Amino acid sequence: MSELSDIGLIGLAVMGENLVLNMESKGFSVAVYNRSTEEVERFVNGRAKGKAITGCKSIEELCTNLSRPRKVMMMVRAGAPVDSVIEQLIPHLEEGDIIIDGGNSHFPDTNRRTEMLESKGIRFVGTGVSGGEEGALHGPSIMPGGSAEAWPDVKPILQKIAAKVEDGTPCCDWIGPAGSGHFVKMVHNGIEYGDMQLICEAYHLMSNVLGLSNQELSEVFAEWNNGKLNSFLIEITSEILAKKDDDTGEHVVDYILDTAGQKGTGKWTASVALDLGRPLTLIGEAVFARFLSALKEERVEASKILHGPAVKNDIDRQTFIDSVRDALYASKLVSYAQGFTLMRAAAQEFGWTINYGAVSMMWREGCIIRSSFLSKIKEAYERNPDLASLMLDPFFSETLNSSQTEWREVISVGVLQGIPTPAMSAALGYFDGYRCERLPANLLQAQRDYFGAHTYERLDKPRGEFFHTNWTGRGGETSSTTYNA
Amino acid sequence: MSELSDIGLIGLAVMGENLVLNMESKGFSVAVYNRSTEEVERFVNGRAKGKAITGCKSIEELCTNLSRPRKVMMMVRAGAPVDSVIEQLIPHLEEGDIIIDGGNSHFPDTNRRTEMLESKGIRFVGTGVSGGEEGALHGPSIMPGGSAEAWPDVKPILQKIAAKVEDGTPCCDWIGPAGSGHFVKMVHNGIEYGDMQLICEAYHLMSNVLGLSNQELSEVFAEWNNGKLNSFLIEITSEILAKKDDDTGEHVVDYILDTAGQKGTGKWTASVALDLGRPLTLIGEAVFARFLSALKEERVEASKILHGPAVKNDIDRQTFIDSVRDALYASKLVSYAQGFTLMRAAAQEFGWTINYGAVSMMWREGCIIRSSFLSKIKEAYERNPDLASLMLDPFFSETLNSSQTEWREVISVGVLQGIPTPAMSAALGYFDGYRCERLPANLLQAQRDYFGAHTYERLDKPRGEFFHTNWTGRGGETSSTTYNA
Repeated sequence: MSELSDIGLIGLAVMGENLVLNMESKGFSVAVYNRSTEEVERFVNGRAKGKAITGCKSIEELCTNLSRPRKVMMMVRAGAPVDSVIEQLIPHLEEGDIIIDGGNSHFPDTNRRTEMLESKGIRFVGTGVSGGEEGALHGPSIMPGGSAEAWPDVKPILQKIAAKVEDGTPCCDWIGPAGSGHFVKMVHNGIEYGDMQLICEAYHLMSNVLGLSNQELSEVFAEWNNGKLNSFLIEITSEILAKKDDDTGEHVVDYILDTAGQKGTGKWTASVALDLGRPLTLIGEAVFARFLSALKEERVEASKILHGPAVKNDIDRQTFIDSVRDALYASKLVSYAQGFTLMRAAAQEFGWTINYGAVSMMWREGCIIRSSFLSKIKEAYERNPDLASLMLDPFFSETLNSSQTEWREVISVGVLQGIPTPAMSAALGYFDGYRCERLPANLLQAQRDYFGAHTYERLDKPRGEFFHTNWTGRGGETSSTTYNA
Repeated sequence: MSELSDIGLIGLAVMGENLVLNMESKGFSVAVYNRSTEEVERFVNGRAKGKAITGCKSIEELCTNLSRPRKVMMMVRAGAPVDSVIEQLIPHLEEGDIIIDGGNSHFPDTNRRTEMLESKGIRFVGTGVSGGEEGALHGPSIMPGGSAEAWPDVKPILQKIAAKVEDGTPCCDWIGPAGSGHFVKMVHNGIEYGDMQLICEAYHLMSNVLGLSNQELSEVFAEWNNGKLNSFLIEITSEILAKKDDDTGEHVVDYILDTAGQKGTGKWTASVALDLGRPLTLIGEAVFARFLSALKEERVEASKILHGPAVKNDIDRQTFIDSVRDALYASKLVSYAQGFTLMRAAAQEFGWTINYGAVSMMWREGCIIRSSFLSKIKEAYERNPDLASLMLDPFFSETLNSSQTEWREVISVGVLQGIPTPAMSAALGYFDGYRCERLPANLLQAQRDYFGAHTYERLDKPRGEFFHTNWTGRGGETSSTTYNA
């Protein structure tokens, strides 16, 4: 072990191992460490054999084996384990060394850790890594944020191992300060929840309304993958629907329990939207839909008690399939518009500058939500980097305006036939609410003023002047006077 | 000041003052204190003059003036001020004394404070108080929880000042341990958000689809208030819509800015639902609708860019009005079912026992969401105290089943005509999802297994056995083997 390694990696679960092999294949030497050191043994004598990968028996040994400034990437479970590894690292690092957290940490933790480590002269990068095991090995989407001065040092490695867009652009660029990288990864995961829920609703509609078979559905999704919906999730949906069990010859999807699991990042996204006061309705409904799916026993019971509507079905098959495609696409546009609005709110709240077009290109390949549609987002932010909402961009507004007939038709069919489309409905409701110059919230403000004297603003007066009405005639002197509330 | 007072109250804002006057009018003597002692002076020389109300200049003086065990109610701003007053009280209290927090504290704070105070031998009651200023003075809804041993001591006062149901039942009963009282108040506020949003959607639909005038709308709501929708919020909506400005003679509601304010308790409810894994879709949409209303400038901009559908209107007026009424009622049933499910989840999570029927009667009068419908909830829990969801109760299921034609028709009209009905749609989507024996989450689980090897359970195998499929045929050995995930 005469030569120093380019980077260290701690945490040899499958994601960590695959990232190490990815780095090594791109010409970087890697020192590795794992809490259970048998895993180090197993790895260096197995998949890492004969490669520029050095096993270490302690964190101290790992740090001794790294070229300066040291770069140590952690791929350990989010939460306390990350803090623990950081504490163990600190005594063995010097000023200017860099710790990289590549796990699914929640961004407030990354905010805190960046501040703590920078105060000790250590640079910190919190980065989202998306793409699953395959992505980690062959090229994930990487979303780094934290200490900006660390970027020149980690950029060559991270961009080299990242997925690439057709033109060679790496799906990895600097996001911004503190926890902004993990924030963007969180929104990515929330959008992933939304995309998956929308596909499930399209599947539910087409199989229930039209009675399409798995094979027919697989073909529909395959065709969709050749058009504007081209994306990883649509592609694998087609493959999944075609997949038969080797033993029974039956379609696998038919015996999978309809109870969706989750690991919490979608929930974080919805919670943060509530904290930041942003209407993230589609992702919210997607998270709630997973919760509802988990209530399997209750649903079985309810299915015996709660009945659906009487349905007469004279819907044209191909027309409906095309309309579902358009409804899915329009809903997807709204979901991404909401997601980018949330990033914008976070940037305002935390004083970050985020390059939204670059974010869309980081998701263009390598990650779960990769799709050709993401190029449209990049183009929108090229046209106007300060776009308040993607829905105001010409491509988005024209697509939404022109596909609304089909979108409305599909949701109406779901409503009348009793097929739930919570995410598509939330998207349309948002579209219709967003384009309302006047919402009925005037009545709501009147109610709040009636029972709680909360006051209201007026359409014909400047913002910031507050008024109260004595609605009942019993309250005394306070009719329509200006309040400083 | 020879005689000791029955109870002390700290915090003489309007809610606090009105509660004091309410207590005094029911025969209790009250000692009062406020941080700015001028407020104490003003109150005792003003509204409290000649009454059994004693002003105190310090917390020590307040505590000296109370009969044992001391009962001190705080009506101060939620958050740090509550902790501060508690710290100031502790040195002047003895074992067995009782602190009551009547503010809008978040329930985790109440959990923490109950534990801390009980460890010092002081009993703590965190209680929701709803009904606004009027309610505080004449009879609010009161939802106390915390140290159960405090209940016999505070019960006579709290039940005496509370609102009463027709048969004399006070709208105040013991909820349960720790923060359960504030939890129930939080859910009350979330439901209030939902009720208000539903009324706004009904108003929006009828004014846009039918072009009803404010006066006509007022009459519709007045009529609804005589039927199954009888409630405070429907009643005041009718009054609001009829209200004209004294000066201009124009309807006040027309010049109120359509930007809804909020104080955060609705947001708490949705956040807690995310934490507890419960699909609280209607309240979630109601909170998001307020956020969307706040984006007034963006909406004005969007209204010029995003267009609605072409509408041809041949809808029968009275039929549609009746259908909106039924859609509102059905949606309300779903909202309450969701809210009570959230309380049930909290009870499971925190080990509380909550009497759900009693909760519904605490809301029957005195508070913002008071309505005759709440008696139906009490009856449902009388039929089955362990009801998993109100939607499984015969009254609920029959109402939902039989009003679904109108409910679907109204939402479909909104969808096709471009009138947003996010809360009604969320309610219907939940109804349709909840009664699905099989949801499309099987596909979602397949996707998760495809890209993340998350494994899935099978319909034909016991729960707890996890399977993985090698979807691509490239992944090697792991086809359909049992996992311990």
